Amino acid sequence: MKTLTDLTLITTSVTPSSMRVSLFLAEKGLEIATQEINVRQGDNLADDFKQKSINGLIPLLKLENGQYLSESLSICRYIDEREPDELGLFGFDTLSRAQVDMWNRVLEWQALIPAFQAFRNITAIYKDRERCVSAWGEESKLRVSEFLPRLEARLQESAYVGCDRFSCADITAFIFLRMCSALEVEWQQYPALKAWFDTVASRPAFQQ
Amino acid sequence: MKTLTDLTLITTSVTPSSMRVSLFLAEKGLEIATQEINVRQGDNLADDFKQKSINGLIPLLKLENGQYLSESLSICRYIDEREPDELGLFGFDTLSRAQVDMWNRVLEWQALIPAFQAFRNITAIYKDRERCVSAWGEESKLRVSEFLPRLEARLQESAYVGCDRFSCADITAFIFLRMCSALEVEWQQYPALKAWFDTVASRPAFQQ
Repeated sequence: MKTLTDLTLITTSVTPSSMRVSLFLAEKGLEIATQEINVRQGDNLADDFKQKSINGLIPLLKLENGQYLSESLSICRYIDEREPDELGLFGFDTLSRAQVDMWNRVLEWQALIPAFQAFRNITAIYKDRERCVSAWGEESKLRVSEFLPRLEARLQESAYVGCDRFSCADITAFIFLRMCSALEVEWQQYPALKAWFDTVASRPAFQQ
Repeated sequence: MKTLTDLTLITTSVTPSSMRVSLFLAEKGLEIATQEINVRQGDNLADDFKQKSINGLIPLLKLENGQYLSESLSICRYIDEREPDELGLFGFDTLSRAQVDMWNRVLEWQALIPAFQAFRNITAIYKDRERCVSAWGEESKLRVSEFLPRLEARLQESAYVGCDRFSCADITAFIFLRMCSALEVEWQQYPALKAWFDTVASRPAFQQ
């Protein structure tokens, strides 16, 4: 483990976006000091936090020069470029980097965002800070289910989601499947998806 | 102008995502042969198209080896890495690349996706292929309006959205403002936003 002593990660560990960064760091064998806040109790609604975080959300990376970076995937990109290695978690050549980016985006736009919108609009967990439309929550949940056969088809032809080796697109897909479970959307009936999940979940970085 | 003869872009020019790629190419002084299809008439719903495009959408880039890349921003990244230049449209150093990526993502998640969801759910333009929830359309339109002061604040402090020079985050913001106009969401009352828009719209690449 290498510790990046000039960085601090402001995080709520249990959330999907924070988990994305912590899995990425664990895969790369990196450690960053963390400052835990509670977004469910609204710690991110304080003026002080909003001045630091452009999107008003965690995770938030504090740099040595006092600047801050928001957006989980942008934080991962920043760290990956600063600390390059042979893993190539964003891909390992021009084409695979484009494919990993594409799969990451397809997963976000067509799977993860619908999953987030389903969860937030159905449970109204953040009704203290946003208006909810339950019919959109149910529609989004349906779209999550409808995406699964496409992920299954991808994993029938490829061992990993983004390219032919493990990448950050697999972390995105892993987090998406955990959201499916939280939404009570069944996915374990898809054989390639189930096999891929078991393989990924058994990686050392995923044992934290 | 340099022509990339090994690539073909399958596109519907008038759509925001296709415009994003064509503006990016124009900024870089690159040309690619295009094949125009009509997504509003459902050309992208044909089995043949769906086999090529992972997300079922345009723009779609055909590579010389017969492979395809979807996702407008992934297409831009691929081309930028293949054809590097001094413009640095994804940023020009580790920190600015992270900031451009962050602003791109903030714009997508908090502005462009709500704008798309507002447009699709209010107009029901794609009701032949998706279920619409008009209450979510109206809520999304409200969120679009609520995002504008944050973009104004950014442009009060920075000449460009992503970093201190023009980047692909400015293309994303430009497309977002055109979506605002289509949604009849007023934005011209924000002075820094208006000044930034006029500057960007007058760039040679934006005259096509």
